[in-house]
Amino acid sequence: MARRNYIFDTIKKVFQKYGYQQIETPAMENLETLTGKYGDEGDKLLFKILNSGPVVDQINKSETDIKLNEISEKGLRYDLTVPFARYVVMHQNEITFPFKRYQIQPVWRADRPQKGRYREFYQCDVDVIGSDSLLNEVELIQIIDEVFNELGISVTIKINNRKLLAGLCDVIGMTNKFMDIVTAIDKFDKVGFDGVEKELIEKGLDDVSLKAIKEFINISKFDTMNILGMERQLGSSEIGVKGLNELKTIFGYLNSIQNLFFDGTLARGLNYYTGAILEVIVNDPKSTFTSSICGGGRYDDLTGVFGLPNVSGVGISFGADRIYDVLDELKLFPDFINDSTQVLICNYFSKDQSIYLDLISKIRAVGINAELFPDPADKGNTNKLQKKQFEYAKSKNIPFTIAIEEINNWKLTVKNVANKTTKVLEFESFIEELKLFMDSNK
Amino acid sequence: MARRNYIFDTIKKVFQKYGYQQIETPAMENLETLTGKYGDEGDKLLFKILNSGPVVDQINKSETDIKLNEISEKGLRYDLTVPFARYVVMHQNEITFPFKRYQIQPVWRADRPQKGRYREFYQCDVDVIGSDSLLNEVELIQIIDEVFNELGISVTIKINNRKLLAGLCDVIGMTNKFMDIVTAIDKFDKVGFDGVEKELIEKGLDDVSLKAIKEFINISKFDTMNILGMERQLGSSEIGVKGLNELKTIFGYLNSIQNLFFDGTLARGLNYYTGAILEVIVNDPKSTFTSSICGGGRYDDLTGVFGLPNVSGVGISFGADRIYDVLDELKLFPDFINDSTQVLICNYFSKDQSIYLDLISKIRAVGINAELFPDPADKGNTNKLQKKQFEYAKSKNIPFTIAIEEINNWKLTVKNVANKTTKVLEFESFIEELKLFMDSNK
Repeated sequence: MARRNYIFDTIKKVFQKYGYQQIETPAMENLETLTGKYGDEGDKLLFKILNSGPVVDQINKSETDIKLNEISEKGLRYDLTVPFARYVVMHQNEITFPFKRYQIQPVWRADRPQKGRYREFYQCDVDVIGSDSLLNEVELIQIIDEVFNELGISVTIKINNRKLLAGLCDVIGMTNKFMDIVTAIDKFDKVGFDGVEKELIEKGLDDVSLKAIKEFINISKFDTMNILGMERQLGSSEIGVKGLNELKTIFGYLNSIQNLFFDGTLARGLNYYTGAILEVIVNDPKSTFTSSICGGGRYDDLTGVFGLPNVSGVGISFGADRIYDVLDELKLFPDFINDSTQVLICNYFSKDQSIYLDLISKIRAVGINAELFPDPADKGNTNKLQKKQFEYAKSKNIPFTIAIEEINNWKLTVKNVANKTTKVLEFESFIEELKLFMDSNK
Repeated sequence: MARRNYIFDTIKKVFQKYGYQQIETPAMENLETLTGKYGDEGDKLLFKILNSGPVVDQINKSETDIKLNEISEKGLRYDLTVPFARYVVMHQNEITFPFKRYQIQPVWRADRPQKGRYREFYQCDVDVIGSDSLLNEVELIQIIDEVFNELGISVTIKINNRKLLAGLCDVIGMTNKFMDIVTAIDKFDKVGFDGVEKELIEKGLDDVSLKAIKEFINISKFDTMNILGMERQLGSSEIGVKGLNELKTIFGYLNSIQNLFFDGTLARGLNYYTGAILEVIVNDPKSTFTSSICGGGRYDDLTGVFGLPNVSGVGISFGADRIYDVLDELKLFPDFINDSTQVLICNYFSKDQSIYLDLISKIRAVGINAELFPDPADKGNTNKLQKKQFEYAKSKNIPFTIAIEEINNWKLTVKNVANKTTKVLEFESFIEELKLFMDSNK
């Protein structure tokens, strides 16, 4: 939890710096809100809540003619996007647009649990809705850059634009095959160009079209030459030219971000994207992670299905669990997470417990997280019980212990748990001396 | 959310200061873990998750002979205590005891939603388990005191000890009526002594017993005279004397906490408490809240039902929703919650957008949360669109706006949204001047 909070806190701080508001939506939504949004497979993976009351009693009594909608009307959140869209439509009259929100909540999928795939996991989404300005895309890329900088993970941010793909479909006369082509290109990472080509041939594309697509997805740099090439290729398609101009604007504002790259193979599977699409991969030779740890894009009609059409938005989602695994693999978690206990006061003698309480109040008062071991060591085998307290500090990663060895002299001994260095502190000035010792032993 | 986070953050910071670790448990638990723990009513209020797969398909096809356990095996968390007990038993070999944990997560109850009662709400629990030292009780009372101090809510902390009640039952020869008597006294707040008496008469108590109970619940001060009285009354009961000594120890350590009071009427409904019991009520004449906003106690065998007997623990639960309502009623929420946006940069001219981006990066770099309005005001009715940006700041409670009015002179105008005071900032030193203006306009 401390480590997961470290990730969430880092991300949240950046979101807040950019003015996003946190919202939360209920775990349960009406089944009609959820079904039909994630495909047939998704419908099967929805956790459905059993209705309460007489109908269920009936089932228990094995009476017949019971339909699913009679026993279940609610389901658990499957992602954060659909509940967010429902939320925006429901609160459209109270929300001031553009609406910048972030949301960090668990989602549930009735999948077979296996490594890296859980029934319950957190999503971490940030979106701005109700503004078609490209400054929103710019801002989200800055947020990506800042979050991974703060976490110390070196990443590559890949960008493409669905409008370019749409333009490409236009110029090869395959406008109606847009989603087929997107779906095929989306598999490039797994199957390579040969696999993409095979799927596109099955979908009925001819050689000329395949050549154009191959040329496009080979582009991995948004430089003058490639831009000229794309202008030539897409010049006759209005939407293609629009996509190209959008990318020029975004790159123009972001010339300080060195790790942002155009990637023609980036397509993203979901069908609601209509503009810029983004994906982030780890760029560290020591990492074994190849899948994306963050992604998103511009969508022009997310809320339409709930009766509020033409609201454009753009958003990204951070994969908290994958980010956790990357930080763990690359040993990038800070040694010392501030939230945890820094000092354990040993509880050796029952008669001194008031003094321990007084000491610990003083330590906490200067903002140091501290614990007093609750059970005194003189109620049993003193040696063993004293040792147990030190072991407690060790297993909880508490870096310092304080013991009062010679109570009559009012002297305290602080010990560094890792290297066992000790120092005797004067009672009158123990807070200052303790802070110095802690600083010099970091 | 910002206000709820303010409550959670305040509480969490205190928990961490006292060395508690945060844990989270899954929303779903096996039904057998949950059922039978909250009484018949609780069993009805459990949200049950429909099993996935063929059995459900069968129901859809109206085939018969289906039992509840065939269609539902999992349910949603009903409180944090039962999952915590299950967690402790499951991880008993990895946990270092005493285990200090806190947990802030939603729970679900299939209740009819009404004012102040929700289907999904947060609980906020802190417990230490595996130590019977009274220093744990002392610490939890300090935590209560500190949390409400931080939040600015004046409270009364009420304490009693179930052992005193047990002792009382012993001396009046009603040992076997312990839970009946507890349940009756627990209703004192609602029905007064007459109501309690009526219920106790129904349970078969005689006049002598009633008189003893009335005497006991009338005690509202732990002073020398009352202590002597209790010693006289309970002296022949071992458990009664133990309870009295526990209270003496706790009060002895806590003489600095002025708002801790013994309350003979405090009984608490749940049957697992075995020692100190606590409840916190608002002590502010301006508040209309009479119900408790925090409560808990010592339990000696919470994990026994899951196969790990004799693990003593003590814990309290903060009622986040009620605390929210109290802060709201008493207008105690801080005006200015740090997480939110402090500055809005107005986006007046498309051609200046790079400059705006540059400015906002500098503002964010010094740790000020800032937003750039994404849509430029020169794409349409400029006056109206400029006004819209100011309205945006107002509705989002952003205290300051910055506009570049005379771009050629590199001058920026900062405005206080509330009182409309403005100041022109020199471009070269705008960060320092902005900070000064913000400080003087707080």
